[in-house]
Amino acid sequence: MLIRLGYDIQFDLPAITPMVALLHIHPSREPDLLEPDVLQIDPPIDATEYIDGFGNRCTRFVAQPGRIRLSNSTLIADSGLPDEVNEHAREVPVGDVPDNFLCYLLNSRYCEVDRFSSIAFDLFGHVSPGWARVQAICSWVNTKVRFSYPHARPTKSALDVYTERIGVCRDFQHLAITFCRAMNIPARYATGYLGDIGVPYGGPMDFSAWFEVYLEDRWWTFDARHNTPRIGRVLMAVGRDASDVAITTSFGEANLKHFSVVTDQVQADATEEAVAAASSIGR
Amino acid sequence: MLIRLGYDIQFDLPAITPMVALLHIHPSREPDLLEPDVLQIDPPIDATEYIDGFGNRCTRFVAQPGRIRLSNSTLIADSGLPDEVNEHAREVPVGDVPDNFLCYLLNSRYCEVDRFSSIAFDLFGHVSPGWARVQAICSWVNTKVRFSYPHARPTKSALDVYTERIGVCRDFQHLAITFCRAMNIPARYATGYLGDIGVPYGGPMDFSAWFEVYLEDRWWTFDARHNTPRIGRVLMAVGRDASDVAITTSFGEANLKHFSVVTDQVQADATEEAVAAASSIGR
Amino acid sequence: MLIRLGYDIQFDLPAITPMVALLHIHPSREPDLLEPDVLQIDPPIDATEYIDGFGNRCTRFVAQPGRIRLSNSTLIADSGLPDEVNEHAREVPVGDVPDNFLCYLLNSRYCEVDRFSSIAFDLFGHVSPGWARVQAICSWVNTKVRFSYPHARPTKSALDVYTERIGVCRDFQHLAITFCRAMNIPARYATGYLGDIGVPYGGPMDFSAWFEVYLEDRWWTFDARHNTPRIGRVLMAVGRDASDVAITTSFGEANLKHFSVVTDQVQADATEEAVAAASSIGR
Amino acid sequence: MLIRLGYDIQFDLPAITPMVALLHIHPSREPDLLEPDVLQIDPPIDATEYIDGFGNRCTRFVAQPGRIRLSNSTLIADSGLPDEVNEHAREVPVGDVPDNFLCYLLNSRYCEVDRFSSIAFDLFGHVSPGWARVQAICSWVNTKVRFSYPHARPTKSALDVYTERIGVCRDFQHLAITFCRAMNIPARYATGYLGDIGVPYGGPMDFSAWFEVYLEDRWWTFDARHNTPRIGRVLMAVGRDASDVAITTSFGEANLKHFSVVTDQVQADATEEAVAAASSIGR
Repeated sequence: MLIRLGYDIQFDLPAITPMVALLHIHPSREPDLLEPDVLQIDPPIDATEYIDGFGNRCTRFVAQPGRIRLSNSTLIADSGLPDEVNEHAREVPVGDVPDNFLCYLLNSRYCEVDRFSSIAFDLFGHVSPGWARVQAICSWVNTKVRFSYPHARPTKSALDVYTERIGVCRDFQHLAITFCRAMNIPARYATGYLGDIGVPYGGPMDFSAWFEVYLEDRWWTFDARHNTPRIGRVLMAVGRDASDVAITTSFGEANLKHFSVVTDQVQADATEEAVAAASSIGR
Repeated sequence: MLIRLGYDIQFDLPAITPMVALLHIHPSREPDLLEPDVLQIDPPIDATEYIDGFGNRCTRFVAQPGRIRLSNSTLIADSGLPDEVNEHAREVPVGDVPDNFLCYLLNSRYCEVDRFSSIAFDLFGHVSPGWARVQAICSWVNTKVRFSYPHARPTKSALDVYTERIGVCRDFQHLAITFCRAMNIPARYATGYLGDIGVPYGGPMDFSAWFEVYLEDRWWTFDARHNTPRIGRVLMAVGRDASDVAITTSFGEANLKHFSVVTDQVQADATEEAVAAASSIGR
Repeated sequence: MLIRLGYDIQFDLPAITPMVALLHIHPSREPDLLEPDVLQIDPPIDATEYIDGFGNRCTRFVAQPGRIRLSNSTLIADSGLPDEVNEHAREVPVGDVPDNFLCYLLNSRYCEVDRFSSIAFDLFGHVSPGWARVQAICSWVNTKVRFSYPHARPTKSALDVYTERIGVCRDFQHLAITFCRAMNIPARYATGYLGDIGVPYGGPMDFSAWFEVYLEDRWWTFDARHNTPRIGRVLMAVGRDASDVAITTSFGEANLKHFSVVTDQVQADATEEAVAAASSIGR
Repeated sequence: MLIRLGYDIQFDLPAITPMVALLHIHPSREPDLLEPDVLQIDPPIDATEYIDGFGNRCTRFVAQPGRIRLSNSTLIADSGLPDEVNEHAREVPVGDVPDNFLCYLLNSRYCEVDRFSSIAFDLFGHVSPGWARVQAICSWVNTKVRFSYPHARPTKSALDVYTERIGVCRDFQHLAITFCRAMNIPARYATGYLGDIGVPYGGPMDFSAWFEVYLEDRWWTFDARHNTPRIGRVLMAVGRDASDVAITTSFGEANLKHFSVVTDQVQADATEEAVAAASSIGR
């Protein structure tokens, strides 16, 4: 399956503003790219790339005052398979969690693990550990929390979601991640493209958040917002929570003026045309 | 100057408990060691070491039920000079902060930068940037917050400290770090040994927390708790906040039964004797 | 000056729902009424009235499932004068505050006075007590907080407003009230009609919130949202905070389907016609 | 049964300090008094009494700088019966709750009812309404929360207790009250004397907190801290939460220097002697 990816994000900046963008696909998906994954910045500006401590490909630059446009269009090959499910995936005892994943057991800004120990144990202590427990957490969050765009806010933490029971995709994942960590299951926040392949949906595309859990011997994708295996996720970044992997972090005032995301399945025979179209954008 | 360092920490564990300890001195201070820095675990147990994402030397092990004792005694050479002061150290524009330090501008569990933007700007926006501004932050926190052991609690965040105005050393640093980050100054939490060299003090030794700020071209030590240059800090770990660098993190119940820390200046001619004494402990 | 007052509020109720409404004008304004102040309930239902502990005229009833409409139209005489200003009004020492107003010095749900003592003293301790200090509080809140309907939420407290610096009229008042109480000035939340008499305004009418402060020997009107004397306030209720004086409190799910408020200056020679019109609604 | 009641509370005040004390027994218990219930203030000072909005007998005065001592000794007759239990007490539909008790369904400072709707319903929605549900709430809190004096703090709210699961008697009651209100059951905070009659106890006497719930046609005593019917409670005050009924509220700094409470069962034949002893104190 081929998926056309892209975005067009525009800010008005009242002053010189340093920015960090996590707008590339994750290094783990780079082998699947059929077109270059180039972050276009208009007006053109010097930008540098680096890999952050979580393994994400970041872009940083200092934007001039006025309008700035970040855009991209690329093409990626995807398995076309839904998120993998393995009900036999076992919980990994903390003592066996790889060193560099221990940090995904700890507190972070939006995941107050230290306030959820008892709550999580009361809710999920009776569920058998491993895949079933994570699935129970996902289903609980999916059932108890209601999706609502107007109820998003930047400071909303897992505890807020737990009491308010309403929010956007990041809120669902923060709560589920916090429950997992409180049960000693490594869990990390993920952000990327998720289209409407295979599901009825009429709304505008957006980036999406989901989360990953370390079971058996690897990370698995879970999504407390949709709570069903989905086709066509393209990972951009992972981190402890949304604070680590904001699509853009602006160190100063930045007023969003336009935001659109493309993530469309394209036919194989449309590839060549797509590549042409995409590369023309990139010129 | 020579400083004898050590600790004796004992827990009672009701069950098998995975633990992570940050009880080694920081790799940056290893060249100063005059004796090995060995974490003794009694009863003996397999432990492994690793360097975490922040550059700290960590020890992990799975403890058996019952009493566990973590202890150490080592000797280190120290400059004997107080924390360096450079009133001319300039603020680094965010665009010039090294890639791997950008994370020290973000939110973390106990440092809700996203809730402090306006507060910090109101308080410190008028102070000239660079060293003076960080010093103003330190002095503000030092003046406004009162030290009190009984007012410590594990979930206390910078916002709690800001409203309650009371706490322990970690609380002072969390608030100061949050103010710095809200002013776009990279700041990180530090933990280590700090004795009473050069200051009148009668209480028992303890580990201490301070913080580091990136100015000009390097990290500088600040301490909102004491707010005066001190002699004899020995760094153990740095991180985004106390969540990252807990002395010990237990994944399960762990009841602290004994806790003592040694950090004493020793005479040069006492070295050999000290080395002998220390190594006898380690046997 | 004559002011036509009214509202039309409609809910869909999935089940039998007990409700309390504070939709009458305050007893202190009843002498000014030129038409009866009748809460129309459709479909008609038994309702009873009572005066709550704060002196407000409340209506309670048990609504049947389905649509319920609460409406009213009445006419009131108003002085046409702006909120009274008395820059010489002195602060009342706590020892002299009347017994029944001491409760307006305490904590309430959205006014966490216990978390604001130091913040308030730092900000307003240097301002001379009395009117000037309250005015300084009002101006600070008015300047620092930005009005935004989408940023309202039911659980938002003064501390949230203080950190987020954005909200609706109730949020402005909660923060100002909390500052006042933290400075030992009795302050209470007020809700009522506030039209656009004398001010340019194009938006739809709404109920409004302001607050009252006890100085010298009486309560005075302040409004941290508008921060300028206004004409045509008609008080409906006072209480410790928005929790006490919600326009409607539903004990169960209640989905708001329509909400409109009328508060228009009418010409004196239109009175008779207005009375006729109003009473026809009430039939 | 006769119970000797009393207290000796001493503060050091750095400045003139207005104070309100709720140190009298509740008017509902006055008929049981065998000796006058006189609040002694040393040095003597003009004090006035009033009944607050919740029906409590309050004392207010303006204390001079220096040491102030509040003391009392009185004697009361008690039924000697444990808290009444009525498992058949039915829940009162909100529509039938008396007007003046509706306020005990609302939010208050330490009882964030608006954040507990879903939590309470998940935990207690399946329990049959009425006495059984309140008892289930009490038992849940009693089981899940651990008593610990050092974990008290003035700003601790029900949500804090729910996440931290540790606290003192006021914390237990705040959480239970919040659960009740979230289930539409009127609940109010109560404070008073509670000795160790009939229970093994070796600690020093203290005032205690419990709570009252409106079921059937009256208020009933519950106690999430002890969760068993107790003998010898003597009510002092009721309110929405601890903010309303603090034993003493000081409008300024007040450093507690001594605190002791007496609540001892005395033999009937000791009455006369007791009266004599008590009145000698009062002289």
